Amino acid sequence: MKIFRRAIMPEGFAAGGVACGVKKSGKPDLALLYSRVPAVVACMFTTNTVKAAPVLINLNRLKESKFFRAVIVNSGNANCYTGKDGINDDKKIARAAARALGIEETGVLTASTGIIGRRMPVDKVTSAVGALVASLSARGIHKAAAAILTTDTFTKEITAEYACGGKKITICAIAKGSGMIAPDMATMLAFVLTDAAITHAALNRALRPAVAKSFNCLTVDGCMSTNDSVMVFANGASAHRTITGGRDFALFARALAAVCLELARLIARDGEGATKFISITVAGARSFAEARTAALSIANSNLFKCAVYGENRNFGRIAAALGSSGIGAREGDIRIKACSLKKKDVTVVVTMNRGNASATVYTSDLTPEYVKINAEYS
Amino acid sequence: MKIFRRAIMPEGFAAGGVACGVKKSGKPDLALLYSRVPAVVACMFTTNTVKAAPVLINLNRLKESKFFRAVIVNSGNANCYTGKDGINDDKKIARAAARALGIEETGVLTASTGIIGRRMPVDKVTSAVGALVASLSARGIHKAAAAILTTDTFTKEITAEYACGGKKITICAIAKGSGMIAPDMATMLAFVLTDAAITHAALNRALRPAVAKSFNCLTVDGCMSTNDSVMVFANGASAHRTITGGRDFALFARALAAVCLELARLIARDGEGATKFISITVAGARSFAEARTAALSIANSNLFKCAVYGENRNFGRIAAALGSSGIGAREGDIRIKACSLKKKDVTVVVTMNRGNASATVYTSDLTPEYVKINAEYS
Repeated sequence: MKIFRRAIMPEGFAAGGVACGVKKSGKPDLALLYSRVPAVVACMFTTNTVKAAPVLINLNRLKESKFFRAVIVNSGNANCYTGKDGINDDKKIARAAARALGIEETGVLTASTGIIGRRMPVDKVTSAVGALVASLSARGIHKAAAAILTTDTFTKEITAEYACGGKKITICAIAKGSGMIAPDMATMLAFVLTDAAITHAALNRALRPAVAKSFNCLTVDGCMSTNDSVMVFANGASAHRTITGGRDFALFARALAAVCLELARLIARDGEGATKFISITVAGARSFAEARTAALSIANSNLFKCAVYGENRNFGRIAAALGSSGIGAREGDIRIKACSLKKKDVTVVVTMNRGNASATVYTSDLTPEYVKINAEYS
Repeated sequence: MKIFRRAIMPEGFAAGGVACGVKKSGKPDLALLYSRVPAVVACMFTTNTVKAAPVLINLNRLKESKFFRAVIVNSGNANCYTGKDGINDDKKIARAAARALGIEETGVLTASTGIIGRRMPVDKVTSAVGALVASLSARGIHKAAAAILTTDTFTKEITAEYACGGKKITICAIAKGSGMIAPDMATMLAFVLTDAAITHAALNRALRPAVAKSFNCLTVDGCMSTNDSVMVFANGASAHRTITGGRDFALFARALAAVCLELARLIARDGEGATKFISITVAGARSFAEARTAALSIANSNLFKCAVYGENRNFGRIAAALGSSGIGAREGDIRIKACSLKKKDVTVVVTMNRGNASATVYTSDLTPEYVKINAEYS
């Protein structure tokens, strides 16, 4: 398996991105990902009980079908806490995209990210759909990666390539996410395109553990988004035998997990206002879930994150955060190791004395710049 | 009942405070509260599984006895995550205090607050105990209130006075707490002295609900301390009939609850780096516990707290935070009202459509100054 830090488009997909004016800055804010043939789709969404309109509608769309042709994504407005108007606005956007693409409206998924509680300027979006469809190309994926960003400082693109049954399979993904990042679940938008031929059941089976160990082990500020969406489109264009299980499945699942993990790490690295990328491993736990809970309790500690920002070896805060998770690790059973805090990449390893399971979570430091960004964001 | 914003010493107590050198700044850092006769004592401690040495030892001391004469408190060093050495250090401090006071060692409780994971400079403390005892007086309570502070910017003193059976009962309390403030439980140090005569059972019964609606409805940064302690000393010096239940108990419980609530509000007001005091009420919940969970999910949202700091009416973040608590309030069932964000005191009222219970929690905004304080604190 080869991993590339850039998007390399799989067979049979095209993408594009334009500026439609949702963002006042005039930056790109509308993206489209498109498959020439119906692709089998697996999705995971936020577990926040307050869900954005596109999430609510996608959940319905996915009850009706497992095959889709496109997803249209805007950044700048979350279309959340917008009531029935928001639902109608989202449907208008999907309808406009379907018309411009010449496909059924039922073949289009939607996603939004941005400010919560404000009405979507739907006319700006629908007016730009023609130009958006005109911009579709294989290279357009880089434009799409830029058009889904909000406070991100760089685009997040990853590609995995591997061989299966003599054919090359490509898994390409883009993501956004920089603040309002916490499990569960994915806490950002991520779109994965693959030319693998795979059943819906197998795709779902591969996606769940991949998300569990990547996006669900990621926190920037402990704030759970209302719009989190991970979508995988598999269009079968690589023309190999359909993946259902066995070694073929194992290879695909491994590549998908690698793509998700790299995206999650990129998101933590681009945490709002971040000066440090922090990996926290908790070992010696009774289960993966326990290790993850313990690691997240450290990763979500404002005091720990401030200490890392200040390059201040205040390890007591790690013990305090761990204890606050309620896991019955006694003081004498906790060993803490951390690499130099002076580095940009900080690694913390906590070993407990309770079992053999471990988990690694990814986060960033808490900085005055984070406060500034989020005091002014509106 | 009368409430005073200053400590007025009840009968039969004395207090004092000195600088012993635990704090490098040379500020007061050692306090003593003393009752001339054995006082019945009720305590509540942090639920963090990593507990500081004084908390662990107090738990043992309270198994042995319900009556105590004194508590000695240092600020600057938490004596936590310090292993067996920390336990021995704490015992040395209690022993020195008992000797200087001429009482049994079993009559002394201890408390610490400050940096976690660093050995207590025990000689500095024991050397200062003589001067500390010499400083004991009724007016010494103000010195004690100053000597327990860490990053606090002002002392926290409250007194309630009321009449019971023709006698005046005084409940006087001091507290510290400014960061590492989150439920459960008390998330700070609070010492309550009263001349009420009350049974241990009744004192405990009064303390639990008082803490539930005050210190456990308080969060500054969502970080749970390892040292939280609330201690109530009741020495019976007011010489009225012993409180066991009925109207006498109701009056005492009401006054104790008022004292705890005022202290909690003072702590939120002095949140590290705070520019705003925020009260969040969630109404229309199924139970107090549900309302409290919902209100705390908002109070602990970094994004909400940054928005208040920026005086930015980003109410979507309130809905998102509420939804992240997992409470099944649908978007259409959430009504949000907030008073002007330009004021120093910000009030948010969220009404759900699930029941008749409500809860109010207290917090502060998240500011660049909070990050600065905690990046440098060590």
